[in-house]
Amino acid sequence: MEALPMSDFVVSSKVKGAYSVHFIDDLQTHMRQLAAGAKVIFIVDEKVDRLFSDALAPENPSVRRILIECSEEHKTIDYCKEVIRRLIAANVRKDDCLVAVGGGITQDIVAFISSILFRGQDWKFYPTTLLAQCDSCIGSKSSINFDHFKNLLGTFNPPSEIFIYPGFLETLSESEIRSGIGEMMHYFLSEGIGLAQEVSDRFEQVLHDRSALPYLIENSLRIKRAIIQVDEFDTSIRHIFNYGHTFGHAIEAITHYAIPHGQAVTIGMDLANYISLQRGMIDRTQFDRMHAILEKNTPSFAFTESNIESYFQALSKDKKNKGNKLGCILTFGPGKLEKVFIDMDESLRNTILQYSETYHS
Amino acid sequence: MEALPMSDFVVSSKVKGAYSVHFIDDLQTHMRQLAAGAKVIFIVDEKVDRLFSDALAPENPSVRRILIECSEEHKTIDYCKEVIRRLIAANVRKDDCLVAVGGGITQDIVAFISSILFRGQDWKFYPTTLLAQCDSCIGSKSSINFDHFKNLLGTFNPPSEIFIYPGFLETLSESEIRSGIGEMMHYFLSEGIGLAQEVSDRFEQVLHDRSALPYLIENSLRIKRAIIQVDEFDTSIRHIFNYGHTFGHAIEAITHYAIPHGQAVTIGMDLANYISLQRGMIDRTQFDRMHAILEKNTPSFAFTESNIESYFQALSKDKKNKGNKLGCILTFGPGKLEKVFIDMDESLRNTILQYSETYHS
Repeated sequence: MEALPMSDFVVSSKVKGAYSVHFIDDLQTHMRQLAAGAKVIFIVDEKVDRLFSDALAPENPSVRRILIECSEEHKTIDYCKEVIRRLIAANVRKDDCLVAVGGGITQDIVAFISSILFRGQDWKFYPTTLLAQCDSCIGSKSSINFDHFKNLLGTFNPPSEIFIYPGFLETLSESEIRSGIGEMMHYFLSEGIGLAQEVSDRFEQVLHDRSALPYLIENSLRIKRAIIQVDEFDTSIRHIFNYGHTFGHAIEAITHYAIPHGQAVTIGMDLANYISLQRGMIDRTQFDRMHAILEKNTPSFAFTESNIESYFQALSKDKKNKGNKLGCILTFGPGKLEKVFIDMDESLRNTILQYSETYHS
Repeated sequence: MEALPMSDFVVSSKVKGAYSVHFIDDLQTHMRQLAAGAKVIFIVDEKVDRLFSDALAPENPSVRRILIECSEEHKTIDYCKEVIRRLIAANVRKDDCLVAVGGGITQDIVAFISSILFRGQDWKFYPTTLLAQCDSCIGSKSSINFDHFKNLLGTFNPPSEIFIYPGFLETLSESEIRSGIGEMMHYFLSEGIGLAQEVSDRFEQVLHDRSALPYLIENSLRIKRAIIQVDEFDTSIRHIFNYGHTFGHAIEAITHYAIPHGQAVTIGMDLANYISLQRGMIDRTQFDRMHAILEKNTPSFAFTESNIESYFQALSKDKKNKGNKLGCILTFGPGKLEKVFIDMDESLRNTILQYSETYHS
């Protein structure tokens, strides 16, 4: 798990034909070359712009740049409209390329706008968070909230190029790193135990030494790529990547997003494993081994009599449910994920409470 | 030019793989079968619903239906949001099919929503106007206005099935029929003189006998299909279908849409032909032959010293321009259209005024 030169790669796509991921080490030079060579408009998360102002400031003041505010509350059609108005003010043309610089929310906003402006606009992406670098930057999805419905709207619209600059990770908090680790773990455990065990064995290094991350990012994207190339539109095998997510999303919902996404997914995976254990899909040894790995990245949270009802309500709203059955991914062991529909009954309720009593008290 | 049994056909598409066009003769039975067999939500232009209430009323009151108001002012993101709220109230699910019943604006609204709801929703379409039946129903485009920019937003998203019921044409006004004829003429003249001459020779019949229309609709769609199958995303050869449209759109703009689309396109074609004549691309005989055909469908309108400036301004805003050059389609004769960039100068101004002085006074 050393800092190695990372390899560029290509993702095949039904939407775009193919798009490429490049690892870059000189952000300033790279962006200036991009700005010089093409008709571009940069759309930058203003927080990122403040942190990396030296590298992000354009050499040529005529380069068009829009700073946007990237919070969950801004992942709306109305905010997209505001950004479109600013693009019009910047004299946007059909043959311009929108260049997003930011995390997953920046990606959602720019990808969505580029799906609908002029019936489709080229866009490129510099992901700046670990979550965006290891996961969301490939896979084509954009997601926009609508009223109180999370991610109700969206499109499949990958960027034409993705530029991963590991230097962006330097300023991330431990909590953001932990969130990214949780997301990567779900890819690793979808493949087998190897990489997950490796992260666990060197957990402190991964948490504090940023040079350990590119190797993990590359592996995370490699695993994701193999699946999305087969099921880009998420109608079949890509469903396995809901592992930890169905149970995690509902934790995010009832805690009002106080627990970062990838950390909620970590509990989600552990809970999915526990339910798999109860159903005889894995044995105690398998559960314990994965639990020991996930435990290191588990935030402080417990299911209790006081939150289990709202948790069930949040689970019941999941788009993947069928009738009263919860659609979720369980495991027959690392690398052996399976989509299952389970009853949302008293038994599931008790299993979840028992899980927290055993592990979170 | 008789009422013949029309042939169903398939359009190949990069977006949808393929989609089909069916000619139907029993609307009520057809819609009831569709409602019975699939999870559908009908989205119906309320004007159409009033005119065809007997056929459109669902047999089963539990069939979900939304009536919408389809005016140019409603072709906006904000109105789409309202319709999405009503779909949510109707308990819309990812595996529902949205069924649009209406003209081009209904199509735009439903196609756009189905592009962004749940990252893409199946939709089907019963076009009810001549314009929608002969033209917009195939070709994948949706168009949404933004602030004062017409069709700035949109997507490529064809329906999975199109059902053409000629009975919808019975209630159309002569002006709407003329608009559809103008649009069909631009397809016919893109292929050659034959069908255009045929329409001209029997112009009164086409205008008043609805049974003459399906044959023309089928030919119009046949010509369009050949091109959109090669250039669905309108990046090359499909540009020829801007014939009459660049000059026509600007007429619509300066008359605030008082002149129906296909009638403005008719003047647009005649003007494009006149400019082609001035540039030596066609000779006087060719111009006169096409002019005699188009003249029958030409609305009352003239370019004058008092509107030529605003007309030039409208032309200068066309998305297809390059710098100060107007991107438009001119002709080397029927079936020989060509994309040309022409100077927006005094000479063009005089040519346009001369055209109206000669033919519209």
